Amino acid sequence: MEKSWAKLVNLKNMVIKLGKDDPRRVIHSFKVGLALVLISILQYFRPSFYAFGDNIMWAVLTVVLVLEFSVGATLGKGLNRVLATGFAGALGVGIRRITSFSGDKGKAVLTSTSVFFIAGTVTFMRFSPRLKARYDYGLIIFILTFCLVSLSDNPENELVEVAQERLFMIIVGSCIAIVVCICICPVWIGQDLHHQIAANIQKLADFLEGFGDEYFNNVENTTGAAGDKPFLHRYESVLSSKSSEETMAVLARWEPCHGRFRFRHPWKQYIKIGNQIRLCAYKIKALSVFLLPSEKTPYELRSRIQESCTNISIESGKALKESSLILKHMAKSSMPNGHVANAKAAAESLKSVLRSNPWEGADHLEIIAAATVASLLIDIVVLVENICEAVDELATLAN
Amino acid sequence: MEKSWAKLVNLKNMVIKLGKDDPRRVIHSFKVGLALVLISILQYFRPSFYAFGDNIMWAVLTVVLVLEFSVGATLGKGLNRVLATGFAGALGVGIRRITSFSGDKGKAVLTSTSVFFIAGTVTFMRFSPRLKARYDYGLIIFILTFCLVSLSDNPENELVEVAQERLFMIIVGSCIAIVVCICICPVWIGQDLHHQIAANIQKLADFLEGFGDEYFNNVENTTGAAGDKPFLHRYESVLSSKSSEETMAVLARWEPCHGRFRFRHPWKQYIKIGNQIRLCAYKIKALSVFLLPSEKTPYELRSRIQESCTNISIESGKALKESSLILKHMAKSSMPNGHVANAKAAAESLKSVLRSNPWEGADHLEIIAAATVASLLIDIVVLVENICEAVDELATLAN
Repeated sequence: MEKSWAKLVNLKNMVIKLGKDDPRRVIHSFKVGLALVLISILQYFRPSFYAFGDNIMWAVLTVVLVLEFSVGATLGKGLNRVLATGFAGALGVGIRRITSFSGDKGKAVLTSTSVFFIAGTVTFMRFSPRLKARYDYGLIIFILTFCLVSLSDNPENELVEVAQERLFMIIVGSCIAIVVCICICPVWIGQDLHHQIAANIQKLADFLEGFGDEYFNNVENTTGAAGDKPFLHRYESVLSSKSSEETMAVLARWEPCHGRFRFRHPWKQYIKIGNQIRLCAYKIKALSVFLLPSEKTPYELRSRIQESCTNISIESGKALKESSLILKHMAKSSMPNGHVANAKAAAESLKSVLRSNPWEGADHLEIIAAATVASLLIDIVVLVENICEAVDELATLAN
Repeated sequence: MEKSWAKLVNLKNMVIKLGKDDPRRVIHSFKVGLALVLISILQYFRPSFYAFGDNIMWAVLTVVLVLEFSVGATLGKGLNRVLATGFAGALGVGIRRITSFSGDKGKAVLTSTSVFFIAGTVTFMRFSPRLKARYDYGLIIFILTFCLVSLSDNPENELVEVAQERLFMIIVGSCIAIVVCICICPVWIGQDLHHQIAANIQKLADFLEGFGDEYFNNVENTTGAAGDKPFLHRYESVLSSKSSEETMAVLARWEPCHGRFRFRHPWKQYIKIGNQIRLCAYKIKALSVFLLPSEKTPYELRSRIQESCTNISIESGKALKESSLILKHMAKSSMPNGHVANAKAAAESLKSVLRSNPWEGADHLEIIAAATVASLLIDIVVLVENICEAVDELATLAN
């Protein structure tokens, strides 16, 4: 009894968390319910075009399968569904007309052969990464519709009529799905991608801005220091965001002009920025090891490169922060370039500190950690510059 | 004319490449065609249970949507489809029975309300990552079936019969899909995951085995050396393999005993190994920068840590290679531990070389690259040991 109560409370908390993490989820659930109710209302009012029995199920099928969380996904699926149904239906009717000239046995053989070849070919096409990204759903629907038309029981004269009615119902379903998706609190996946990339840059900026203070503080052996500071870990989600960004960019291409985004917004550039961000995140991952107290070079040695290293990390962080803001607000600004220049200058000053052999006479085993940090920071400046340039390029492409 | 001919040749090459990359794709396309032909044969022979007109389309729908490339995906979708249809159908019939006690208007309102709430709730459930991973398809089918039953035109006495017939056709379709998928050259996704993880370890091993020679060769300014050597780049695919591994592990859990894998094979451990592999790959990514001729410390300085660094990288590579072989052949062996011990010993000897201050008097700016390589290699030994331990653990869990 107590156990199941605990489980119920757990479930309640999980549901609340799901809704709080992204309230648009609740709205989306509401939209799906609404779209289906709209169809059921159509069904109850039964206008003339509803006179044919069970065909409403095609509208229901379409709404359930097409109405997705984001506008891009819904539009993509809706167009795929309508076009694929149309083409496959036409092809199926055509082939049936041809096979009808042969006898009963010939017809069976011809139908099976055409189903085999067309289903096989289209299935094979689904393996092409290019087609899969944009037209996977359409290809499945193509196979489905073609097989349904070919294997249907209806005599040929009825067939065309039934096919037209179904296509019509699918168009009705797609339209309802698209209208509900766009008109009620639309979720633009392009905008999500935009914000996600900006947030990812911000995560790197948070790490870099904090790194200098973290690494060069004099308190040795602070236990679990890194664990308590979320800004030192936020960047980790960037490491594995590649596939989600690519999916979003593909879906975003279906979306019409919305907000500050036009139809042919350069979504591909976001993938490019995302890749640059990840390169920088890999480097930060390597850098983060040295925040562990056990990995630190004694403070006395570390402090000799403190100033220029701290400057590099702070200025890189600021450059990324500015870059993230520019991206977020789609405004032009030369601020990041200033910070990049400062970071570069700090890197040069670090190099000249190193040239003056700051660790003369020290144990080389003790200095390698500090030397690695210096080397990684110098590399990071270049990567930060690349990110800022890619963001700049996006601004140019978008206007 | 010539242009379209070139395009055609391009297309042909692409198709051949798709097939050659993985010949199982051709077999899968053949299997989809075959399963649909099997259904069309059933249709032509028309055994008694086929007497009801258009219901064959449910079998066609099921085969097209359920028959996936791998056994795990097919079984998962098939079970999801049958169970979801069964439950949703029962719920739908139950609710219709309740609403039938109210008048026409009451019925319309009750039906719409129940469709709204159930579709909304289940849509919301789809956002839970746990449910989404294993039951997403089932949840969609649940909404679909429930709406179809609720909004169907059939009078109630016919409804139960129609629902049963459709469920039966869906079971027939699922069975055909599953039988074809398992009996003709089955693609076990668990096996694929197993091989992919082993191959990923091998990729890291290739890099590490080659790194020593690459980094410490005396030929300065070899142009584009790294570009020509594929083994130095193969590891890059590991960096972004997280999501594909997770999907595969989820699907593998549906698969029954096959080959050397039993039903409850510890698939989760593969994700764990995969994560360890990626941690090592991030480190290798940082290491790979130093292969660029422009980043290299002068040979004279580099050579002072050559022996122990080369030993670390070769022994780490060998340990990973052995680990990959153990995983591949599911055999027990203590070989990797020997190599890990050697790598550790080499790391210790590198540390003692560093303690003897090999670069005394050298320019610190020039030595930081070499120091970074040394430091990264020392870190890599620990990560390699973790990978070998995770593979060991898998062997223990699997037996």
